Amino acid sequence: MARPLEFWFEFASTYSYLAAMRVQDACAARGVPLVWRPFLLGPVFAAQGLTDSPFNLFPAKGAYMWRDLERECARLGLPLRRPSRFPRGSLLAARIACAHADAPWIGAFVRATYAANFAEDRDIDTDDVIASLLGNIGQDPAPILALAATPAAKSALRAQTETARARGIFGAPSFIVGNELFWGHDRMSQAIDWAAGA
Amino acid sequence: MARPLEFWFEFASTYSYLAAMRVQDACAARGVPLVWRPFLLGPVFAAQGLTDSPFNLFPAKGAYMWRDLERECARLGLPLRRPSRFPRGSLLAARIACAHADAPWIGAFVRATYAANFAEDRDIDTDDVIASLLGNIGQDPAPILALAATPAAKSALRAQTETARARGIFGAPSFIVGNELFWGHDRMSQAIDWAAGA
Repeated sequence: MARPLEFWFEFASTYSYLAAMRVQDACAARGVPLVWRPFLLGPVFAAQGLTDSPFNLFPAKGAYMWRDLERECARLGLPLRRPSRFPRGSLLAARIACAHADAPWIGAFVRATYAANFAEDRDIDTDDVIASLLGNIGQDPAPILALAATPAAKSALRAQTETARARGIFGAPSFIVGNELFWGHDRMSQAIDWAAGA
Repeated sequence: MARPLEFWFEFASTYSYLAAMRVQDACAARGVPLVWRPFLLGPVFAAQGLTDSPFNLFPAKGAYMWRDLERECARLGLPLRRPSRFPRGSLLAARIACAHADAPWIGAFVRATYAANFAEDRDIDTDDVIASLLGNIGQDPAPILALAATPAAKSALRAQTETARARGIFGAPSFIVGNELFWGHDRMSQAIDWAAGA
């Protein structure tokens, strides 16, 4: 009997892009229930004493990451246009994904948002872009944007981010099955195997 | 026509252990020439402003790494006994490997040294342990240890470490094919594919 896979992701995270575009199909193929867990890396990095993305703080690692991302996207057949701003503000998208993690359109919203950031270089931290993405997936943007601006939506994302840190998450994407943590797109299939009981 | 694969490794590095135990067979199976490139992570980390292993500086990441290493060793059938000191001093072993990178016994020495560190929890930074490892692979330890203590052997390792940094290496293991850099045991087979021209 397959256990649920928790997919912990940050909309600004490059390797989360690879995982986000693939995780729903990959779980479905194995009969693994998928739980969407958006969070913010900023507070998780801050708790480790990091004031920015490690890819910005450590330029050699950052330069490598962009080249590796190109290779990985080519290998996986995913489009890539390097965002003109990195990391891109992800607060609005994360609040929406957190408030609607169980909605039937969550997967489509997550993929559309990642594609906007990493394949189209659009600023996903604006109401206009998010409204257009929601419209494209058949959702009425107005109530969704209104909900995202409420204190409840804001505190739900803060709480989820704190849960990430408390559960040992230090980067994104991460995957949790029970108490087992897997970090990075490179561990996605291993995490799905774990959930499937293989 | 396969191009050479440069394997850049640090004897104290956990994920270098996984790669070091497998790289020679993996290259041989694909007809890829293997070039052994020991270096020291300390100066490479210091150049990035890091005063210790990131696995020590960032405890959440470190805790994850040890668990991930357990899973990876189990998956790959490699023994693991967590070293009582991490990172273990690797200067002596690195000087020897650097001075004898083309010796027919280099692969056996590298594997024996990693096994001593990560499967037997032995202090690889002592003459006694290294002498015993060399004896076990049929080499006379005395001249090898004597050579490792010379200024030439010390400066060769320093130069190789500086070359690592200059070529964009920021962690270990790393693999270089031409000018293409791959980081981590997770990229070893991709690097070998690249070298094989696949």
